[in-house]
Amino acid sequence: MASLLRTVTRSISRPASRIAPIRLQRHYASAATSALAGDNGTPALFPDEPTGPIIRTVIPGPKSKEAIERLSKVFDTRSLNMMANYGQSYGNYIADLDGNVLLDVYAQIASIPVGYNNPSLQLAATSPEMASAIINRPALGNFPQHDWADILETGILSVAPKGLNQVFTGQSGSDANELAYKAAFMYRRQQERGGANVEFTEAEMNSSMTNQSPGAPQLSILSFKKAFHGRLFGSLSTTRSKPIHKLDIPAFDWPQAPFPDLKYPLDEYAAENQAEEQRCLAETELLIKSWHAPPAAVVIEPIQSEGGDNHASPAFFRGLRALTKKHNVLFIVDEVQTGVGATGKFWAHEHWGLDSPPDMVTFSKKAQTAGYYFGNDDLRPNKPYRQFNTWMGDPARAILFRAIIQEIARLDLVQNTAKTGAYLYAGLQRLAEAFPNEIQHLRGKGQGTFIAWDSPRRDEVLRKAKGVGINIGGSGEKAVRLRPMLIFQEKHADLLLEGLEKVFKS
Amino acid sequence: MASLLRTVTRSISRPASRIAPIRLQRHYASAATSALAGDNGTPALFPDEPTGPIIRTVIPGPKSKEAIERLSKVFDTRSLNMMANYGQSYGNYIADLDGNVLLDVYAQIASIPVGYNNPSLQLAATSPEMASAIINRPALGNFPQHDWADILETGILSVAPKGLNQVFTGQSGSDANELAYKAAFMYRRQQERGGANVEFTEAEMNSSMTNQSPGAPQLSILSFKKAFHGRLFGSLSTTRSKPIHKLDIPAFDWPQAPFPDLKYPLDEYAAENQAEEQRCLAETELLIKSWHAPPAAVVIEPIQSEGGDNHASPAFFRGLRALTKKHNVLFIVDEVQTGVGATGKFWAHEHWGLDSPPDMVTFSKKAQTAGYYFGNDDLRPNKPYRQFNTWMGDPARAILFRAIIQEIARLDLVQNTAKTGAYLYAGLQRLAEAFPNEIQHLRGKGQGTFIAWDSPRRDEVLRKAKGVGINIGGSGEKAVRLRPMLIFQEKHADLLLEGLEKVFKS
Repeated sequence: MASLLRTVTRSISRPASRIAPIRLQRHYASAATSALAGDNGTPALFPDEPTGPIIRTVIPGPKSKEAIERLSKVFDTRSLNMMANYGQSYGNYIADLDGNVLLDVYAQIASIPVGYNNPSLQLAATSPEMASAIINRPALGNFPQHDWADILETGILSVAPKGLNQVFTGQSGSDANELAYKAAFMYRRQQERGGANVEFTEAEMNSSMTNQSPGAPQLSILSFKKAFHGRLFGSLSTTRSKPIHKLDIPAFDWPQAPFPDLKYPLDEYAAENQAEEQRCLAETELLIKSWHAPPAAVVIEPIQSEGGDNHASPAFFRGLRALTKKHNVLFIVDEVQTGVGATGKFWAHEHWGLDSPPDMVTFSKKAQTAGYYFGNDDLRPNKPYRQFNTWMGDPARAILFRAIIQEIARLDLVQNTAKTGAYLYAGLQRLAEAFPNEIQHLRGKGQGTFIAWDSPRRDEVLRKAKGVGINIGGSGEKAVRLRPMLIFQEKHADLLLEGLEKVFKS
Repeated sequence: MASLLRTVTRSISRPASRIAPIRLQRHYASAATSALAGDNGTPALFPDEPTGPIIRTVIPGPKSKEAIERLSKVFDTRSLNMMANYGQSYGNYIADLDGNVLLDVYAQIASIPVGYNNPSLQLAATSPEMASAIINRPALGNFPQHDWADILETGILSVAPKGLNQVFTGQSGSDANELAYKAAFMYRRQQERGGANVEFTEAEMNSSMTNQSPGAPQLSILSFKKAFHGRLFGSLSTTRSKPIHKLDIPAFDWPQAPFPDLKYPLDEYAAENQAEEQRCLAETELLIKSWHAPPAAVVIEPIQSEGGDNHASPAFFRGLRALTKKHNVLFIVDEVQTGVGATGKFWAHEHWGLDSPPDMVTFSKKAQTAGYYFGNDDLRPNKPYRQFNTWMGDPARAILFRAIIQEIARLDLVQNTAKTGAYLYAGLQRLAEAFPNEIQHLRGKGQGTFIAWDSPRRDEVLRKAKGVGINIGGSGEKAVRLRPMLIFQEKHADLLLEGLEKVFKS
């Protein structure tokens, strides 16, 4: 590891002389002038990362262009944002092939938790148990490894949301949601059937094989307008983000409820927003009661992410939990993007103050593995092989998540994210005052670094940000969304704010 | 690695004296008495593996029982077959927690390619590039790593089926199939729309958001009775294996065609079987022409695996290819279980002698990564972000597949599997003559080690096989299926045959 650190540091401190680097200077920064220094005495969480972005070429530069052209012959590169050199990426900084090093507040679509080439993860990745997990991948449902309970208990389950003590593991966010939906349908039908001990009828078994009711029931999952829950066939049927995600793909005729369309700033429009949330809850209840294919579950993101960073109040979510209880419908919280610390709580739904936990909580992205948590034993289907597949997750990725959890605990990163988020939000408020046309509907206050705003020239802002050394993502039609890693500190916030100011001034 | 080898060898050569091991003796074996010796002079492909199974306790033994009980508190263990100690598993042998070591001809539901703790894979798993792939997992569609083209070209694409030169990567067999289905639907609608340059209409975009036609079209994927293509919502709608796989899960109203119900031995019933295949092709054509939601693609396994190891002739598959061409329907071959050498060809569909390649071929399991191959550029959707998700596969697993491919080439394992398969099949024929009630409808001749038969007491045979040191799986209602690894040699076939004989005599 030491040699890797040296290599990275050297490459950044000694740029090739052929192309003169633009070293971006800091305006907002206070005392910190070296990456080794922290914020006002706070130690740096990633001591050896670069001191700031380095821009040597336009992006993509010549080497990147050549590599992209080559890749495009065998792999679709039309969605390519930036070709990366991960060997040269470190902490909060992502490097490309032309020596450019960018502060990364997109983090692989919100999925890098504790920095590129994190030394603690490196240790986990080079451990004998990781090697074994890579080369001896088990069919977990049939032949679990002897330490699978250990890996779960000291890893995934050690951060289980309150009230949920079991897990079913999967491989991606879409997969996690579909597995949760399947559990919900089996649970619902079991209740309708009269319990776990009631056998399937001949009619159910036969009709299931031809995809007909009652074996393949006319039930649904209720989701919300602008929701994103994945892109496989079941999850896509609950996704309502954009036509480009859904066009030409057959979908289930499942209901969508309105998601509150809140007015900003939230405090100024408290009464209107409360009324809007009540309207949405009422319409949700109507759909639960009247949809021709009754919902077995309601699924919702704590903050709608792909759909444009749309927020609702804790009261709205408590109301939804109450509604689902009232109508005996399961409540699934999709924490694929919000989970694992980004909102200043480990799970975003901890912000809500629920009386009773969600029935299932799904996770992926920053967990680097996926699945759903649950607490109710009845959510285990009544027979084996109903919720089953060959791999059922990946112990290698579960071992990595354990190392991520340990790193989060060691560095108190959830607290860091809450603190840095407050600092960043305050800085953005100042920027929004200075550039009211550039930062509209700033949102995410008190939600860690899970911050976004609307921009009338969003795509241009994202493009220009690269030129000043910052990698940012968008969401929805016009939102700029910040998804930095959990090791993002005030010094990084300063760099981000000064970079944005440059872009806004351009 | 050396120390790992020593540990394994030691633990197997010096069993704890407390429980006397039953060392199973070989009856069918010729000269080979040590694991270091090969078959009739053929070098051992895995020199350091155990010389044979070791049975010390009933399975599960006391340590396994304790571990299973613990695991069951947090993870569903009702489908658990055997809890494994992969640190003690080697080559063709899987170890448990009580010192039992079994010859494994199930291989994690057909997904371990070149042996447990394979030293070449160990090298790949402990390489710096693997560590980087583990800890710096990219969103491949947005931020691919600089060597992604290299990894694809020297790995996944180096074994692409003839005529297919591009790949879209995914994470599991179900995922691979659903991605292929999505590509098929987008292709079909693009044709109906009049080409890649025709824009979506307002009506399409709006209706897609409410899961209604025309945006979410009334199209289908045609599959076959007893097919298995996965368990997510779209793939499950094409799966027709067993009610337990499908019950209580909503499904698309998609068509299923009959799969040929052949009579054995195949040569004796050549005329009847040909007529049966013609009948199935005719019914398939009728469904393509008349189903209310027209099929965008036909998907089929070269050998129906989960559904009971059902075979059809190359002529049937050629007929199907011709039919799909005639009706302008895509032809997807699901090689999730048959691919990567098990049938004595790298891809099972190479046995068919097709005039034109399939439109898409899906893979997973022994590839240890997943996705679909294609050749036609028009199968890339006309706009970016239509076929997209956060991870779009996993470079770590793609690097592993490259190492698997290199190991297959180095040891000529496809040829080995063809040769061992012929030897094993001949041995099973002799056993079938001696025990005609035990081995019925033996099938898989000329298909490498992808061999199965029907057993009137299948579950009992599988259970008793464990007692004689062999781990075997079943498929369908009554089939015993063999899915050994590609390093399975004649000496292992001998051990398997003698073990089966013991079970049949019991």
